[in-house]
Amino acid sequence: MPLSTDQLAEIEAQRAQSHPTRRVVAAGMEDHLYTAHQVLDHGFVRVIDYMGDDAAICQAARVSYGKGTKSVQNDEGLIRYLMRHWHSTPFEMCEIKLHVKLPVFVARQWIRHRTANVNEYSARYSILDREFYIPAPDHVAAQSEVNNQGRGDALQGEEAARVLDLLKADSARCYDNYEAMINQDGQQGLARELARMNLPANIYTQWYWKVDLHNLFHFLRLRADPHAQYEIRVYADMMCKIVADWVPFAYKAFEDYRLGAVNLSAQMVDSLRRMLAGETVTQENSGMTAREWREFEDVIRKS
Amino acid sequence: MPLSTDQLAEIEAQRAQSHPTRRVVAAGMEDHLYTAHQVLDHGFVRVIDYMGDDAAICQAARVSYGKGTKSVQNDEGLIRYLMRHWHSTPFEMCEIKLHVKLPVFVARQWIRHRTANVNEYSARYSILDREFYIPAPDHVAAQSEVNNQGRGDALQGEEAARVLDLLKADSARCYDNYEAMINQDGQQGLARELARMNLPANIYTQWYWKVDLHNLFHFLRLRADPHAQYEIRVYADMMCKIVADWVPFAYKAFEDYRLGAVNLSAQMVDSLRRMLAGETVTQENSGMTAREWREFEDVIRKS
Amino acid sequence: MPLSTDQLAEIEAQRAQSHPTRRVVAAGMEDHLYTAHQVLDHGFVRVIDYMGDDAAICQAARVSYGKGTKSVQNDEGLIRYLMRHWHSTPFEMCEIKLHVKLPVFVARQWIRHRTANVNEYSARYSILDREFYIPAPDHVAAQSEVNNQGRGDALQGEEAARVLDLLKADSARCYDNYEAMINQDGQQGLARELARMNLPANIYTQWYWKVDLHNLFHFLRLRADPHAQYEIRVYADMMCKIVADWVPFAYKAFEDYRLGAVNLSAQMVDSLRRMLAGETVTQENSGMTAREWREFEDVIRKS
Amino acid sequence: MPLSTDQLAEIEAQRAQSHPTRRVVAAGMEDHLYTAHQVLDHGFVRVIDYMGDDAAICQAARVSYGKGTKSVQNDEGLIRYLMRHWHSTPFEMCEIKLHVKLPVFVARQWIRHRTANVNEYSARYSILDREFYIPAPDHVAAQSEVNNQGRGDALQGEEAARVLDLLKADSARCYDNYEAMINQDGQQGLARELARMNLPANIYTQWYWKVDLHNLFHFLRLRADPHAQYEIRVYADMMCKIVADWVPFAYKAFEDYRLGAVNLSAQMVDSLRRMLAGETVTQENSGMTAREWREFEDVIRKS
Repeated sequence: MPLSTDQLAEIEAQRAQSHPTRRVVAAGMEDHLYTAHQVLDHGFVRVIDYMGDDAAICQAARVSYGKGTKSVQNDEGLIRYLMRHWHSTPFEMCEIKLHVKLPVFVARQWIRHRTANVNEYSARYSILDREFYIPAPDHVAAQSEVNNQGRGDALQGEEAARVLDLLKADSARCYDNYEAMINQDGQQGLARELARMNLPANIYTQWYWKVDLHNLFHFLRLRADPHAQYEIRVYADMMCKIVADWVPFAYKAFEDYRLGAVNLSAQMVDSLRRMLAGETVTQENSGMTAREWREFEDVIRKS
Repeated sequence: MPLSTDQLAEIEAQRAQSHPTRRVVAAGMEDHLYTAHQVLDHGFVRVIDYMGDDAAICQAARVSYGKGTKSVQNDEGLIRYLMRHWHSTPFEMCEIKLHVKLPVFVARQWIRHRTANVNEYSARYSILDREFYIPAPDHVAAQSEVNNQGRGDALQGEEAARVLDLLKADSARCYDNYEAMINQDGQQGLARELARMNLPANIYTQWYWKVDLHNLFHFLRLRADPHAQYEIRVYADMMCKIVADWVPFAYKAFEDYRLGAVNLSAQMVDSLRRMLAGETVTQENSGMTAREWREFEDVIRKS
Repeated sequence: MPLSTDQLAEIEAQRAQSHPTRRVVAAGMEDHLYTAHQVLDHGFVRVIDYMGDDAAICQAARVSYGKGTKSVQNDEGLIRYLMRHWHSTPFEMCEIKLHVKLPVFVARQWIRHRTANVNEYSARYSILDREFYIPAPDHVAAQSEVNNQGRGDALQGEEAARVLDLLKADSARCYDNYEAMINQDGQQGLARELARMNLPANIYTQWYWKVDLHNLFHFLRLRADPHAQYEIRVYADMMCKIVADWVPFAYKAFEDYRLGAVNLSAQMVDSLRRMLAGETVTQENSGMTAREWREFEDVIRKS
Repeated sequence: MPLSTDQLAEIEAQRAQSHPTRRVVAAGMEDHLYTAHQVLDHGFVRVIDYMGDDAAICQAARVSYGKGTKSVQNDEGLIRYLMRHWHSTPFEMCEIKLHVKLPVFVARQWIRHRTANVNEYSARYSILDREFYIPAPDHVAAQSEVNNQGRGDALQGEEAARVLDLLKADSARCYDNYEAMINQDGQQGLARELARMNLPANIYTQWYWKVDLHNLFHFLRLRADPHAQYEIRVYADMMCKIVADWVPFAYKAFEDYRLGAVNLSAQMVDSLRRMLAGETVTQENSGMTAREWREFEDVIRKS
């Protein structure tokens, strides 16, 4: 359980509050507010605030497209049109603020997305908690043999057990020594900004992260993808669920035109047209490399 | 009056709505929501949505500084500390969405601030209204004789009248011809994306503009400055009033540490210390150029 | 001809210079340096500086992928892999600086791309030249009847002539009055920052524009697209030629995976698989709207 | 010594190359190219590429200010004017690309500066080297007693020795176990993307980092500041030296107007004027809090 009794009480107090507002309210999001949705063993994602809804996307788009479009195009049609034709600015008109708790090695991938606002818990200023990510047994995976940056099947038996033992023992020892170094009983105590360097990358950190819907979709497309590392993908999956409740039309368009879509190269489009016209196309006469051809076959044959 | 009866009715309908929310509500901002605050002859600024308040700044800052600071430092003190020491990320945790109507030459300056989200009314898609900025007589100013990019006193008499006549006549004629070119009665009608090129830069456009508080402060510091062009400064001034009602602590800190503050160069600090120690400092022995010295004197002598 | 004798002499002087450098040099780009490539009637694009080449993309990517990959993957293969899998950061390691002269209404579209550096000629400070974009006769197009933001065939006969006469006459008159207002013979002269508002949007401006290769590709994908307005597309086309000479591998990958590629929605991929498996798929059983189906047919049937 | 013989040979080969170019060349920077300047025990900063020089700043500024200014204002004066009045865009016209090796906990601070391009060595794909930052004895500092996020004097005697022993032992053990987990002799071997989580934050990583001069100055102002953590400040100090050789006028202006400058609040300016007019000003009648007053005294009295 990632939260203390005090923290749960603070969350409940926030959830109990209710104020009238003239702003747009997204019913599906009000229900999520403040609740900590657990991710991994000690992590969570919780919504702190949001701005806008599906209608707010259309409202902004219609300023940029002028009067009178309201009558000819319903909101969902407009949103799908915007998504299909890469009109990204109306999606930037919605904003979400999250509180996320996550292992440091996940945070290091996450922060590479630059178009967001971040306030991270400071280990220069404060003392980190003794919380480390230890993978569940079925996620202790072997190095992939086909993909240098992927993972294969779960390790078995003794090897898996040994890995888990090492991860736990090193985390515990490093944290013990972190505490010993900063301790001020009978000694001066090492500066926190130095002591933190002893902590391994599976320790948990936390931050406030605020992003607009367009940039969130970009993040989710890359991180909810099967090639993303499992430990960040589970955060992306949780955010997908939240966004689906917040802006259902926009999320559906995102699923259809981004998450479930494929990008076909000029050569792939050409091969496709020839195949549909009855021609036999092979890698040799396609203009594709062997690798590109494999990826093309994955698209058109996947059952 | 910039708004039609229909537009006013739509605004009133939006203002009449009220929904319960679990989100943070800023009382001073609820009052502004949707109302069009007039700027220049046909322009306005109106708040469409907002996220956060003074407390939200502190809440984000405290995640990054850890537990327990809440008791020792009150919110206003923390906000002033953050502003003074250039900790900008907590201010990024508040967001505002505005609907702005403004002349094109003002829009061209405004858009240079890149860290914002924009949806502009499209003159490729729609027909612009016949609304042009014509300066009030006391703002028809002469070219400054001391500053190549500034303006001097108001023009007088015949010259002022001639300028206003020219601006009005050219605006009217260009718009008449814009209409004549796109007209489809008895002719094909020129494409709107081409016809718009006949419109001068004092025509009004409008956009949705969304920005976080840190970047809004940066905008306001540059555009509410006496050196900014009058026609954009009046928009900045209006936004200053709105922000003061939204996040009063943050706005006060912004006034003290940015708007009303001065930046002293290394040479200026050195001269200052010598003067306070009783030394007579002149431009010659200050290490400053004549121009720097004049700016220094403006700082220390302004009554 | 867009350039004066003095300007041409300055360009020739810059082209005549040659210095030894330890930096990476792109031969195809050295040839372009400083030359003004004409676009539209008075516009141009000229390369002022650049950083990097195809090899620099790989060099940066290999830091992020570690040692030893150099031997197993040649540069072109790596670049195509990066492009195909949306690894955008290595492309950000190349940079280009351009001097562009362009009509104001084109500049207003262009500036919407925020991830670039810009210094524009200031009409607050300086006096603009009497140069206006007047379309060539075959580009004086009618409003499209099927696309609210597009254009149809060229206007014919009297209507075309009338449009060109209006554009020329209004440009000339507005500029005459601009000059009259700022004139300081026998009068004070209106401030330049005000007088500029009388100039229509087909007047030319100019700027220095600096951007990294990834963001330039994003710009080119949107602006070299057939749906982009002709007057910005010709700038994009010219930049495509320059980039092809600068980073030929990256440009070829961009052509194949972006410019000439198509994005198929989840429903489109599904229909495609069914068609290739011999099934008869129609709009009705495809899960697509009529509009999506039309776009799908365009992809698979285009001859 | 941070570099292997092979790496040194590669650097020498790069330094030995020389090509003619039409581009602007900065003599002071050519000398730095590729050389690894050591920082901390295993880190370095080396310049991979650059674009522009002092003159390029002026050239861009003059496009935005128009013709004729060249004769009245020399380059250095213009650069100082731009810096003093926060005209940041001309400084964005210079660009630098660095290869940096740095401890992970420093990288985590560094990456918070979002307006830069980054390619980091991937520990998902590759195996990290056994290199850890171990502070020199005089940098093993105690926690500050006055500043929660600072450090005090160096630890002494046994306590210092114990800290160094712990850091070394934990680094070594964690790395041994990292190697043991990924080893594929007689076992499958843990995925690299998982094994890396066992490595503490003092391990070294490396990246290519590209940034424009304006944003680099912003980085340096915050990170070359005495309040910045020592371990990132030494990187900033090294970059300051490099920039001083690259764009000497811009760097001098940066020193005078940013690094060595102070920002005085409205209340501080008011107090100052009263003091210079002979009035006795105390905290009580200054309108400042005790903390603000202390900071004010630091500015005006520092010897």
